[in-house]
Amino acid sequence: MQRLVSSDPGFAAAFDALVNARRESDADVSADVARILADVKARGDAALAEYSQRFDSHELASDCDWIITADECKEAYEALDGELRDALELAAERIRAYHADQLPANRDFTDDAGVRQGAIWRAVDAAGLYVPGGRAAYPSSLLMNAIPAKVAGVERLVVVTPTPQGKTNPLVLAAAHMAGVDEIWRVGGAQAVAALAYGTDRIAKVDVITGPGNAWVAEAKRQLFGVVGIDMVAGPSEILVIADKHNRADWIAADLLSQAEHDPTSQSILITDDAGFADAVSAQVEAQLVELATCETATASWNANGAIIIVDNVADAAPLADQLAAEHVELAVADPEPLLKAIRHAGSVFLGRMTPEAIGDYVAGPNHVLPTGRRARFASGLSVLDFMKRTSFIALDDASLGRIGPAAVSLAHAEGLPAHAKSVELRLK
Amino acid sequence: MQRLVSSDPGFAAAFDALVNARRESDADVSADVARILADVKARGDAALAEYSQRFDSHELASDCDWIITADECKEAYEALDGELRDALELAAERIRAYHADQLPANRDFTDDAGVRQGAIWRAVDAAGLYVPGGRAAYPSSLLMNAIPAKVAGVERLVVVTPTPQGKTNPLVLAAAHMAGVDEIWRVGGAQAVAALAYGTDRIAKVDVITGPGNAWVAEAKRQLFGVVGIDMVAGPSEILVIADKHNRADWIAADLLSQAEHDPTSQSILITDDAGFADAVSAQVEAQLVELATCETATASWNANGAIIIVDNVADAAPLADQLAAEHVELAVADPEPLLKAIRHAGSVFLGRMTPEAIGDYVAGPNHVLPTGRRARFASGLSVLDFMKRTSFIALDDASLGRIGPAAVSLAHAEGLPAHAKSVELRLK
Repeated sequence: MQRLVSSDPGFAAAFDALVNARRESDADVSADVARILADVKARGDAALAEYSQRFDSHELASDCDWIITADECKEAYEALDGELRDALELAAERIRAYHADQLPANRDFTDDAGVRQGAIWRAVDAAGLYVPGGRAAYPSSLLMNAIPAKVAGVERLVVVTPTPQGKTNPLVLAAAHMAGVDEIWRVGGAQAVAALAYGTDRIAKVDVITGPGNAWVAEAKRQLFGVVGIDMVAGPSEILVIADKHNRADWIAADLLSQAEHDPTSQSILITDDAGFADAVSAQVEAQLVELATCETATASWNANGAIIIVDNVADAAPLADQLAAEHVELAVADPEPLLKAIRHAGSVFLGRMTPEAIGDYVAGPNHVLPTGRRARFASGLSVLDFMKRTSFIALDDASLGRIGPAAVSLAHAEGLPAHAKSVELRLK
Repeated sequence: MQRLVSSDPGFAAAFDALVNARRESDADVSADVARILADVKARGDAALAEYSQRFDSHELASDCDWIITADECKEAYEALDGELRDALELAAERIRAYHADQLPANRDFTDDAGVRQGAIWRAVDAAGLYVPGGRAAYPSSLLMNAIPAKVAGVERLVVVTPTPQGKTNPLVLAAAHMAGVDEIWRVGGAQAVAALAYGTDRIAKVDVITGPGNAWVAEAKRQLFGVVGIDMVAGPSEILVIADKHNRADWIAADLLSQAEHDPTSQSILITDDAGFADAVSAQVEAQLVELATCETATASWNANGAIIIVDNVADAAPLADQLAAEHVELAVADPEPLLKAIRHAGSVFLGRMTPEAIGDYVAGPNHVLPTGRRARFASGLSVLDFMKRTSFIALDDASLGRIGPAAVSLAHAEGLPAHAKSVELRLK
């Protein structure tokens, strides 16, 4: 963890270094991924079977090696502990309500020139969702990806997930049942992304691919951008907590650790206006770390990437927050509204002392798939829009073409496109 | 041009081949582009100057070699022929009105559980717009990219454009003046895209890059996706005209040629329910081709990629249109509404006999930057949303945290994330 004080000489340079520090792995997997994609495109299911054997020690032979059935998901759901099932149901219901309210309106209007114009939003036909195997297989992530797709109206929602040594994750299956996932294939890695994008004999291709994954999965999505739609490039995630001294240090420490425990590349940053409070939080982080089952990961993250920044006034945090453009920003102050207005770049903002970020991970309703690695400067969280596309339309008649057609003819000639001009001129005669 | 009849045996296979025909160049420029990006990232302006000399025969030495000033754009605007200026003004005004109406609404509501949730849309700080040099430098494209950015609220809108042998395009400069472009840099190619994404001493980096370009530019954008936001991967464009026999063959032929004249890789397809009308259109295409100044390009496109498909009934065109997922779809029928409803995948639809596609290229209002190469299955035309991003927010208080917090605790424990649980539990006590 590093500690920066905004009034120190050299603060600007140190803060710049913090903003620009690369936390992503330097491993260049692009050539490996390109090879895997080309192989799956050429050889389909045979390539999938080989990679599954090699990377996941999972043999894809009979149908049940390939597919997790709806019945298996239902059984997993029914076997859930009651409290956990209620918690997942509450989460699903709240995510569904938030995203339903997000559905865009179509447009259809006729302007003063008599030109009818508009746009129709429609769901894509099929969406693929990558679900990691192992410890990053979170039922909450499945809900956060699958529910917006279904709310958008996607007819065919396909999950791919590696099942190392054949092992499945019952919580993920239960969540798939709740979200109405249509197919689950037991394949993972770049090869699963390739199968979704190109299609194989078994797996029909999809139009959009979302969901988290390791470096191979992320690179596969990046390389296939344009062949299919993808949600975004995900990088190491982060939390920025802006807290004055009137907070409990143990609460704020837990908030910082809730990010740090995700991954050693995660980043937790506190900005506060009080050096004594900074000390108290720092001490609480150390005290809580040792009690965590996730101690090793959280310690690695906090030591390598954690930071506490002391400013004169919490209002000074806004321009720093904009440079950090963090995935999560907590505003642990009595009146968070001025900071909410002042901070332009953030994935999601958690307002006030009683809104820990973890609430947003599970049950608040807004999506927890958010732009990471400073991408909140230009990217948004996952939404129903990621599973929809817009068709515009235009309708003219004799009168409206008479009004705006001649201008189109002028412009077409000026651009050296005579057939464009002619298609209008013939109708103007 | 090929002619397909839906009742012929072998139609399905022939149509599939048409849908899947690759019209894009097979040249793999990815390694070249990666080298150029790395070079500009490392050496900045010096690399830009070398590439401009090499690729554009343009020396970047003094400031005026680098920059096209606002005064130069204003002069170009004032020197415009009056009719052309009026046409550009009409286009700009109509594009502005359509896109202003597209601005998304923020959300802010408190639900039954007492949880305040919402989302705020904001413009990105800076956007870069690539404008090709040479014959593909269209003032209409500048308006279609720049106006949505300005309507979205982008403060800094930067154009990069190659100026081979130092030559500029006065129409493009005039359009830049009208659209309120803030900076114009005389650099092009992958190196210009790299400068926009990484920044150099002279050119400050931007958050989003849009605009058409050659294979190098498109690949540069693809490789930089995630470093910045980009609009989409653009491929060869196309028009699908669905027309019954009650159309004038010369009108429909001109519509097909208005796409063909863009590029040899363009594709023009007619679907009709009448073989005689198909013959008449085909003859008209041949007759009009020889009169076009763009004859060479249009002939190459029509011969290589053109198609006429004869179906029993125009309603049969809808499923074919969905497979083609064309950039532009004209519905030249008396009542286009049923087909508009039935066709799910199209970039933009032109309704009725009096709406030639060229109207949408210039003056209708909706954007002419549309998904190409079958990407209307998952992508949308350019809009203000491409220059904006959404920050979600959540606010709880004691009471609402008491209602939904326990579920978050259960889920965090189930996912093996104890610090997540603790950040909520501490506040529930």
